[in-house]
Amino acid sequence: MAFKDATVQEIDQVMQDAWKAFLQYRKTTLKQRADFMRTIGSEMTAVSDELIPTVMEETHLPEARVKNELARTIFQLTSYAAACEAGHWLEVRIDTANTEKGDPDIRKMQVPLGPVVVFGASNFPFAYSTAGGDTASAFAAGCPVVVKAHPAHPRTSDTVAKAIFKAVEKCGLPKGVFGHVHGAGFETGKALVTHPHTRAVGFTGSYGGGKALFDWANQRKAPIPVFAEMGSINPVFVLPDKLKQSAREVAGLYAGSITLGTGQFCTNPGLIIGIDNEDLQVFINELGAAIKKVAPGTMLHSGIAKAYGEKRKAALEQQNVETVAVSELPAKEEQGVPTVASATAQAFFNNPLLHQEVFGPYSLVIRCSDKDELLQVVSHLEGQLTCTLMATEKDIQTHTELVDMVQDLCGRFIHNGVPTGVRVALSMQHGGPFPATTDSRFTSVGADGIKRWVRPLSFQNWEDHLLPDALKNANPLGIWRTINDQLSNGALA
Amino acid sequence: MAFKDATVQEIDQVMQDAWKAFLQYRKTTLKQRADFMRTIGSEMTAVSDELIPTVMEETHLPEARVKNELARTIFQLTSYAAACEAGHWLEVRIDTANTEKGDPDIRKMQVPLGPVVVFGASNFPFAYSTAGGDTASAFAAGCPVVVKAHPAHPRTSDTVAKAIFKAVEKCGLPKGVFGHVHGAGFETGKALVTHPHTRAVGFTGSYGGGKALFDWANQRKAPIPVFAEMGSINPVFVLPDKLKQSAREVAGLYAGSITLGTGQFCTNPGLIIGIDNEDLQVFINELGAAIKKVAPGTMLHSGIAKAYGEKRKAALEQQNVETVAVSELPAKEEQGVPTVASATAQAFFNNPLLHQEVFGPYSLVIRCSDKDELLQVVSHLEGQLTCTLMATEKDIQTHTELVDMVQDLCGRFIHNGVPTGVRVALSMQHGGPFPATTDSRFTSVGADGIKRWVRPLSFQNWEDHLLPDALKNANPLGIWRTINDQLSNGALA
Repeated sequence: MAFKDATVQEIDQVMQDAWKAFLQYRKTTLKQRADFMRTIGSEMTAVSDELIPTVMEETHLPEARVKNELARTIFQLTSYAAACEAGHWLEVRIDTANTEKGDPDIRKMQVPLGPVVVFGASNFPFAYSTAGGDTASAFAAGCPVVVKAHPAHPRTSDTVAKAIFKAVEKCGLPKGVFGHVHGAGFETGKALVTHPHTRAVGFTGSYGGGKALFDWANQRKAPIPVFAEMGSINPVFVLPDKLKQSAREVAGLYAGSITLGTGQFCTNPGLIIGIDNEDLQVFINELGAAIKKVAPGTMLHSGIAKAYGEKRKAALEQQNVETVAVSELPAKEEQGVPTVASATAQAFFNNPLLHQEVFGPYSLVIRCSDKDELLQVVSHLEGQLTCTLMATEKDIQTHTELVDMVQDLCGRFIHNGVPTGVRVALSMQHGGPFPATTDSRFTSVGADGIKRWVRPLSFQNWEDHLLPDALKNANPLGIWRTINDQLSNGALA
Repeated sequence: MAFKDATVQEIDQVMQDAWKAFLQYRKTTLKQRADFMRTIGSEMTAVSDELIPTVMEETHLPEARVKNELARTIFQLTSYAAACEAGHWLEVRIDTANTEKGDPDIRKMQVPLGPVVVFGASNFPFAYSTAGGDTASAFAAGCPVVVKAHPAHPRTSDTVAKAIFKAVEKCGLPKGVFGHVHGAGFETGKALVTHPHTRAVGFTGSYGGGKALFDWANQRKAPIPVFAEMGSINPVFVLPDKLKQSAREVAGLYAGSITLGTGQFCTNPGLIIGIDNEDLQVFINELGAAIKKVAPGTMLHSGIAKAYGEKRKAALEQQNVETVAVSELPAKEEQGVPTVASATAQAFFNNPLLHQEVFGPYSLVIRCSDKDELLQVVSHLEGQLTCTLMATEKDIQTHTELVDMVQDLCGRFIHNGVPTGVRVALSMQHGGPFPATTDSRFTSVGADGIKRWVRPLSFQNWEDHLLPDALKNANPLGIWRTINDQLSNGALA
């Protein structure tokens, strides 16, 4: 089955339809949007017998993982639906008139930006693709969505799109509220991002892809926001006292995290940094021993397998990089071979190639000669989705500057854990300083992701019955609002 | 007194100092920041006898206006200080561990981005300049600020800067928390925006200036957010029933708004749109009669006076543009002459020059032949700070599509009022779709302006005593937090 790239004319039609749908969809109630999102979830469940084999064929992901991801995707839809209805994200602020000062009544709420174009991820064919987190949060915001199917799983994307179309129909929404186009080439993406009716862009993928969208969006006559999540090496600092106490346990934990899902997570720990001593050697040896026993896994698609092979090879060939361990189990073609390497901090400082992500089951251990070198590593790092500290209390007390500096680098800061495993919750920040994402002020996981697709609109001097429900005196939506600087979930007296 | 442009070396030093100060300043408590902001206010009050004549000399603004603006600026500092302490802007979200599901404890709060560079406005020498809204909100966020003094009021800026330096010293803060440089040229701005330690930019001024900063920021190796407020023509729709009932009153109200402060407000109503009939003619005649009686005022500086003279002349010379009225009172050099012109909707559609802001006491009345043309005007407009509807209930019922469409254009939507007069309150949105601002999701007025300078940081699996106070179980700051999706201002059980 071949998928033809959408033409510029087809894209124009899809965006025109999305715009027309926007004028109606933005007026839907929070409940209508939430019902729509829940219906998408049930329509996906209804076709799961078709979806699961399709996605397994297209991505080589194992059944358990795929089923898990489908459940997570439906949880995203239903939990963001609940957040949509709760209405905190409307951020209502009311300041009543002060006739003495001549201040008018002003009431502010968040309103949708307009049609959002979503570029799904190859590594999350459900959770960050067609009906994934970007799509769900945009629907909650009141924005139509146009998805460009990822060329690595076009049939999966089509099947999910059909489930969304069915939900659109069942919920009586305008057809254009969802659009779905194919496009393996550069031109499709550019036509979508530069279309005048496109008002925002969501992307999960490589730096090259995300940066191109960001640049196109900023070069438009009217620039639009792009939230691109572009990956990360997720540095892990393993501090001396922690290693003295539990080098073996930390090694076991990290052998699992590095190779989880054949290392194909954007939160995969690609860099581990410690001070070189006997305990670090124990850690490295144990990590190596564990890695040798992890079986290679078939990667998502041939492009990713090829890139992993090449980048891994290039990294291992660098001067002063030692291969610590390679999986000893047999590897088939297109499989990612678990690998751990090691280098001194000096080698790391001198070679920017070692700062780059090797997407797959690979990690590099940096051996620092002392505390100062550990700090220097931090100053050589770019923005990250996550940073992790494996540390005892004593470590934290003796490395206060490190603890401070690391927080500047990342969106999520983990203590004695692993970065893989991204909880879908309001407290989650999945977004970090550039180049981890294009705008560190937003997240793509959790209901706060809705904020990417909305903007504040103030209503000044409107009579109560002419205001949107969220702003009415009686608070018919029963939401929390800030009234004259005080939070309240009641009516305005 | 001459002000030399800061050299690239001087700027580098200022930004290095700002970065060093950031590492300390971000750890200050909310109370320390609020005290600092209040101290700036009292230091400005202490030098008001020096400030007021200086600013009057540099900007030609009358004493009453200047005193008013100083009071407003101090109110901004103290009210944002209160918002800083209240801590809503920290947007704390806590999700406790769920051991059954294997979900870790995650706690999120807003943290400062780093040094913010502020480019003040010529038309608000206090309120949107050295110690203005951008500076105050950045200090609240925990960010050091480097101000580039506006070349139209360098002595005023120096005097305010001295007050801030004094406050820095009194509060025992690191010196680099505030920096102040001069620069009339292009190079100073570029060096500030492209410096690696600059983490965000605030700007109020012209489209040309703001767009240049935006482009430089996006072309950096690591792009940074720019919030540039770049002006607006603030369309006002005067609907038929409203005019039938009160054409004279509306005309009087708008004659005042158009000429307030010699038209030098970014919310000045530069475009008035109505359906041509007898009532609109009455409105135009009355507006003209009132405008003729308004005295010209000396503009902020010779550059603005020259630009007003030229743009006004060019607008009046366009084909099918009729001059309705010009102030009949004598005008001195560098004074802005109150002027109202009129044109048909067709003339407006055919001539993009008429869509542009003429910064000063000028407004253009567009005469539409019917409802459809009124809607067409909306589709010809770009993003705006404000839109206003002068309308009765009957008008609103018969113009539902217009009411809908206008909301897409603007950040603040006014009913039966004037756009001039920007209330400093949490409910205020001073920011609109491009080109009114570079990012419609943020505001430069009101305490929500703090959001421009912060990003979320999640702490995963940290023990209570190692967490920042805002995230601790006991809620020592006594702030509102979202705990397991429920708002609470109490401790975590």
